[in-house]
Amino acid sequence: MKLASLKGGRDGRLVVVSRDLTHATHADDIAPTLQFALDNWERVAPKLATLADRVDRETTTVFRFREHDCASPLPRAFQWADGSAYVNHVELVRRARGADMPESFWTDPLIYQGGSDAFLGPRDAIPLGDEKYGLDLEGEVAVITDDVPIGVTAEAARRHIRLVMLVNDVTLRSLVQGEMSKGFGFYQSKPSSAFSPVAVTPDELGDAWDGAKLSLPLLTSINGAALGHPNAGVDMTFDFGQLIAHAARTRPLSAGTIIGSGTVSNRAADGGPGLPVAKGGVGYSCIAEQRTVEALLTGAPVTPFLKAGDVVRIEMLDKNRHTIFGAIEQSVESR
Amino acid sequence: MKLASLKGGRDGRLVVVSRDLTHATHADDIAPTLQFALDNWERVAPKLATLADRVDRETTTVFRFREHDCASPLPRAFQWADGSAYVNHVELVRRARGADMPESFWTDPLIYQGGSDAFLGPRDAIPLGDEKYGLDLEGEVAVITDDVPIGVTAEAARRHIRLVMLVNDVTLRSLVQGEMSKGFGFYQSKPSSAFSPVAVTPDELGDAWDGAKLSLPLLTSINGAALGHPNAGVDMTFDFGQLIAHAARTRPLSAGTIIGSGTVSNRAADGGPGLPVAKGGVGYSCIAEQRTVEALLTGAPVTPFLKAGDVVRIEMLDKNRHTIFGAIEQSVESR
Repeated sequence: MKLASLKGGRDGRLVVVSRDLTHATHADDIAPTLQFALDNWERVAPKLATLADRVDRETTTVFRFREHDCASPLPRAFQWADGSAYVNHVELVRRARGADMPESFWTDPLIYQGGSDAFLGPRDAIPLGDEKYGLDLEGEVAVITDDVPIGVTAEAARRHIRLVMLVNDVTLRSLVQGEMSKGFGFYQSKPSSAFSPVAVTPDELGDAWDGAKLSLPLLTSINGAALGHPNAGVDMTFDFGQLIAHAARTRPLSAGTIIGSGTVSNRAADGGPGLPVAKGGVGYSCIAEQRTVEALLTGAPVTPFLKAGDVVRIEMLDKNRHTIFGAIEQSVESR
Repeated sequence: MKLASLKGGRDGRLVVVSRDLTHATHADDIAPTLQFALDNWERVAPKLATLADRVDRETTTVFRFREHDCASPLPRAFQWADGSAYVNHVELVRRARGADMPESFWTDPLIYQGGSDAFLGPRDAIPLGDEKYGLDLEGEVAVITDDVPIGVTAEAARRHIRLVMLVNDVTLRSLVQGEMSKGFGFYQSKPSSAFSPVAVTPDELGDAWDGAKLSLPLLTSINGAALGHPNAGVDMTFDFGQLIAHAARTRPLSAGTIIGSGTVSNRAADGGPGLPVAKGGVGYSCIAEQRTVEALLTGAPVTPFLKAGDVVRIEMLDKNRHTIFGAIEQSVESR
């Protein structure tokens, strides 16, 4: 089934959406909010699934579903922990800063605790305080878990994945290095993220989902020009089972925890950094990677970071070229 | 007024507590949970204040208030961001690891995004996975804000402080250094924190509250022996107004955001590290500091980190020696 939260109140209003994202119906009688559904998943999910079936067969009252009416599926969440599972991305962006990458990054997952109290909606503008901040997008896949016990194994963790969605993990590049050097992690460099209009249960993903990875291209564009279409199932050094197990090593995770994959990134066939789309490569899911490769190829980065008026779009299509999660599409606005 | 959340459900049940913490009454008719109250503070707070007055005068139905029935005031929160405002503490614990401290730490606040999806109750056991983790307490003051706009000034930020409480920011010392060196901040090294039974509005603090600092000793003990009683209003390099402004520089903060002070720590009169309680000093609010000073004084740390069966207690008394927030009192249990 496919779920969304229409804007309204701090937690939105849960709706069940048709598979093709054209229609939806309110789910108030079952669960007023997605957080409520996740808090009571075992009891609530079967009822939502029945309703989803009726939406698809149009045997219940439906209304036209519009992605721009959506908040993020969880407009605010009790946990947003973002991995960095495409180690290729980490290596590239560190190279851009002239920083080496420890060998342990290939075996010990990176994860940071993100701010989760106020997500942007999938069509909300990204507020830009100062162009010098180096505003960047990061296209990622994310999962939402139910209650995960402390010390869960990577294998058992897979069964706690209840929903899958996309995310734009907005990043202020110029603030990253200073915060990393302080050792306390990202805070000011990671303003509010935005998630796809729709979160889907893993069974909606068919063969593309192996229980812990989603093997489809993530399509990212800026002002209509493709930035990248790397496959989210390729070069994912740590799958979602491993990321959840890492997160739950010393504490339990509560229902509604969002775990992100980190910026989706594929290597070139020769193992080196992939080429930009304009040069026939699969491109990137953030500007920082493209700039790094530009610097490697030509001696200097060319693509600017985002400025007021730019529009970013992040989407994923199934094998029939239908949108799965709807599109994150955000303009950049000075504030 | 003084507010607490009795255990029950994921968000607890809001009660209004008498000033002396002996009696309480349910607040369901006004606000079922503390998060609800914070989400609607302007409308709800005056009603809660009226009820608090009736509790103190016993003109409403009250029941016996017991601290061990409490969850943390917010059993789960949408944001827990912990500062490190007592720079003295940072300098000492870094010295213990043989790490220098950048001069900028005196002017640019440190803050990390903490896990907020599952707090321990004030009398809940602290689960200990492995003694090698180096389990430590950190005694701190914390505030809860209402909605804070992006870019708020430190002065204006003070008006967004709605509640004050204490926190035990549980820390696994052995995991800190590895996580800091990865640059992504604390995650596994910071398992669930616990907060005091009661959160109070600033007006309950009288002269001890200057709008951004709480000038009273924080009493911390292990197995009944005093670890420290440093004054939370002394050597606080960044006050809560500054910490909130730092947190809100690039994003708004939503109602129910918890901002921590970091481990309360006082320097000695000569500006150096303070002495242990046993040597006539004000002591410390975490074991790591005591161990650092022991190493400086005798060549090696003496005090062990926490082990199964240990009991930690964190409390603050007003000038009449009455408890303000109730006590965090937690035993350590192997899991």
